[in-house]
Amino acid sequence: MEIPYKYYLPAEDMPAAWYNVRADMKKKPAPLLNPATRQSVTAEELEKVFCSELVKQELDETLPWFEIPGPVADFYRMFRPSPLVRAYFLERALGTPAHIYYKFEGNNTSGSHKLNSAIAQAYYAKLEGLKGVTTETGAGQWGTALSMACAFFGLDCKVFMVKCSYEQKPFRREVMRTYGASVTPSPSMETEVGRKINAEHPGTTGSLGCAISEAVETAITHEGYRYVLGSVLAQVLLHQSIIGLETQKALRNLGVKADVIIGCAGGGSNLGGLIAPFVGEKLRGEADYRFIAVEPASCPSLTRGKYAYDFCDTGKVCPLQKMYTLGCDFIPSASHAGGLRYHGMSSIISELYDQGVIEARSVRQTDVFEAAQFFARTEGILPAPESSHAIRAAIDEAKRCKETGREENIVFGLTGTGYFDMTAYQAFNDGKMSDYIPTDEELAAAAPRG
Amino acid sequence: MEIPYKYYLPAEDMPAAWYNVRADMKKKPAPLLNPATRQSVTAEELEKVFCSELVKQELDETLPWFEIPGPVADFYRMFRPSPLVRAYFLERALGTPAHIYYKFEGNNTSGSHKLNSAIAQAYYAKLEGLKGVTTETGAGQWGTALSMACAFFGLDCKVFMVKCSYEQKPFRREVMRTYGASVTPSPSMETEVGRKINAEHPGTTGSLGCAISEAVETAITHEGYRYVLGSVLAQVLLHQSIIGLETQKALRNLGVKADVIIGCAGGGSNLGGLIAPFVGEKLRGEADYRFIAVEPASCPSLTRGKYAYDFCDTGKVCPLQKMYTLGCDFIPSASHAGGLRYHGMSSIISELYDQGVIEARSVRQTDVFEAAQFFARTEGILPAPESSHAIRAAIDEAKRCKETGREENIVFGLTGTGYFDMTAYQAFNDGKMSDYIPTDEELAAAAPRG
Repeated sequence: MEIPYKYYLPAEDMPAAWYNVRADMKKKPAPLLNPATRQSVTAEELEKVFCSELVKQELDETLPWFEIPGPVADFYRMFRPSPLVRAYFLERALGTPAHIYYKFEGNNTSGSHKLNSAIAQAYYAKLEGLKGVTTETGAGQWGTALSMACAFFGLDCKVFMVKCSYEQKPFRREVMRTYGASVTPSPSMETEVGRKINAEHPGTTGSLGCAISEAVETAITHEGYRYVLGSVLAQVLLHQSIIGLETQKALRNLGVKADVIIGCAGGGSNLGGLIAPFVGEKLRGEADYRFIAVEPASCPSLTRGKYAYDFCDTGKVCPLQKMYTLGCDFIPSASHAGGLRYHGMSSIISELYDQGVIEARSVRQTDVFEAAQFFARTEGILPAPESSHAIRAAIDEAKRCKETGREENIVFGLTGTGYFDMTAYQAFNDGKMSDYIPTDEELAAAAPRG
Repeated sequence: MEIPYKYYLPAEDMPAAWYNVRADMKKKPAPLLNPATRQSVTAEELEKVFCSELVKQELDETLPWFEIPGPVADFYRMFRPSPLVRAYFLERALGTPAHIYYKFEGNNTSGSHKLNSAIAQAYYAKLEGLKGVTTETGAGQWGTALSMACAFFGLDCKVFMVKCSYEQKPFRREVMRTYGASVTPSPSMETEVGRKINAEHPGTTGSLGCAISEAVETAITHEGYRYVLGSVLAQVLLHQSIIGLETQKALRNLGVKADVIIGCAGGGSNLGGLIAPFVGEKLRGEADYRFIAVEPASCPSLTRGKYAYDFCDTGKVCPLQKMYTLGCDFIPSASHAGGLRYHGMSSIISELYDQGVIEARSVRQTDVFEAAQFFARTEGILPAPESSHAIRAAIDEAKRCKETGREENIVFGLTGTGYFDMTAYQAFNDGKMSDYIPTDEELAAAAPRG
């Protein structure tokens, strides 16, 4: 059949449940540990921080499917199904025999895939009768998504925004405020951990790990609040599986078998969600795929990190997680634009990488923006810097296909739009963007001791 | 049938031609006049400024259909069909018996419907072998759209951006630059007319009329360049009819008969495009509809302007057009946010309004942003300030239906997103937004003498 430029899954094909890839993993990700006892965390311990239904999802390694609750499915209809786009224009511009597809998650006001999990987490918070939730945001996409979700369910929303993003993206803050959220630059003086970090690192531009600590502390110290997280956790990858499930069904309807599936990787939620059902096929021996995680050279947790137990947050208040990590004190250079600045990686992605199920590569920032600009001009969508890591790798794979003459099917996740990243684009347009690659010594100094 | 939340027209139902509503108007809009001779302009005269194919479209009042060229139809597939959304969440929040639909044109990087005409105009410029085009932009949507279209066809693009928007929206400029356009704040010192206006009105924040003059002058004085315009002209309304044609077909497929059709009105292109085929039905006596043009109280050309021949631009270099106008020297208050700041109105819309085919109303800025925020929180899309004028009217109509218990079908044009309008949203969020309504004396002072 002729592949349309954009394919929207028919309503009757929409997934009714999220897929838990851990159910198909023979060797499971290592359990979260209580930082005090170094024992596996219990549901009871996690429920002090997270909603109980989300704790269930976090800890369940065997149940393959979780039904999507009605109100969440209802909200999904606002922006889902997202289109699976055949990148005809990009293929033509590259002169590649490869067929390139991207799953575009940016057609909603949060500007990214983050809304998929935000609405689920807000729903469970509402169900539990909470007043509100706290969270951190880096590039601002997660905070925006959560603000939208909280507005929908009438929940209060307190966002700690990594200071450098807060300053680079004043308009993100206003979107969140328009949805009724309060936004605080992190590290702030509102929490104990924020004051401590400010004292130890005066003038710091912040990090996701630090913002997480502040949000967790605020949740614990405010009655009726829980903490929610936009990436890294197994529950988030579960919700994000909607991306992969739609993609899988769409490709089947179109009669297309993917060869390579590519996603950018910060905390791992978009990549984990996109590839989950395909990884399931691979683990069950039903089909083979190459999976490529693409990360910034300035924050290379998979390609240059250590697979070890580490803290998820700078303040060391969260459970320990076994993951590829640069060390919870690692803070990427201020020259690094946008997201993908987390020091670690989802334990699921980490374990799959360790097992050799997925590959990883790192790419330089200027190469990423070059790909972003090329993509914008050919495909008509101005991509988020994060998503552009996947574009870079997809273009490189398409070029490889051109050299070898192979007509492969390349699928990548276009997680979002760059409309709030124009400070970074401006630096690129002005030729003022630099590449920063941490030295081995710098990485060794930050690496976890465990 | 059950109406889906979002409806995308199937590929086979996509319009193959644009609709020229003038063909169905018994009394046609008055002709454009040459400002020197006060005679009807000839094609030859217009071709000094515009591409010849576009001149044909501008002057043809009888041909009802113009085929959409292949490459334009091809480009349309990147972002069309746009969804027709049933506003279930908004209806529920309002408790109205009315059924509300909106045609959402914001799911593309230009953020608005403007891309529909930009790609057509760039195509004809390319076809004619031009080097590039010049234009003006107010809120920045048109300039962005044209930049994208020019990047696609490899044309140079010179944009004069109304100074207050240039300052309020630095990121818009970067989007245009990312697509390879040059962007100059207007009035500039690069043109004779710009220097004159700067000398006469030091510190002016600019106007669309003034930016038009600069763009026209630049086109005339640069070999291989023509001027293109994003609204007002009959050719632009022709291209924008794609919005209405898709809407008409979608409603037919869904078995829905609209009662009220609402659009915001600045120059009139989105409104004109949305309502064109429905106006055709009304003029041919096939169906009846109410049409509502919604304009800002701070720039009320239809509701408080004069129906007279006037200049389209402050510099008085363009043809005279008979239209509802506040006078070509009218510049809206600096407190007016975003677009819809043109002193006049499309001659087609003006004539339809004069004939009583369409209604008009003006709305206050703070009421518009209140509607915008309400819409964002219920429907999940952060709307452009311009589009929010239509939202305001749609909500007011839905409230009327609630009072009267009438189950009417309300359709409005959601022309774009507000991601680059966060300065205005910030003013609203901070309670610092003001309403400015010109006095009768101010309007009289600016009114055309003719």
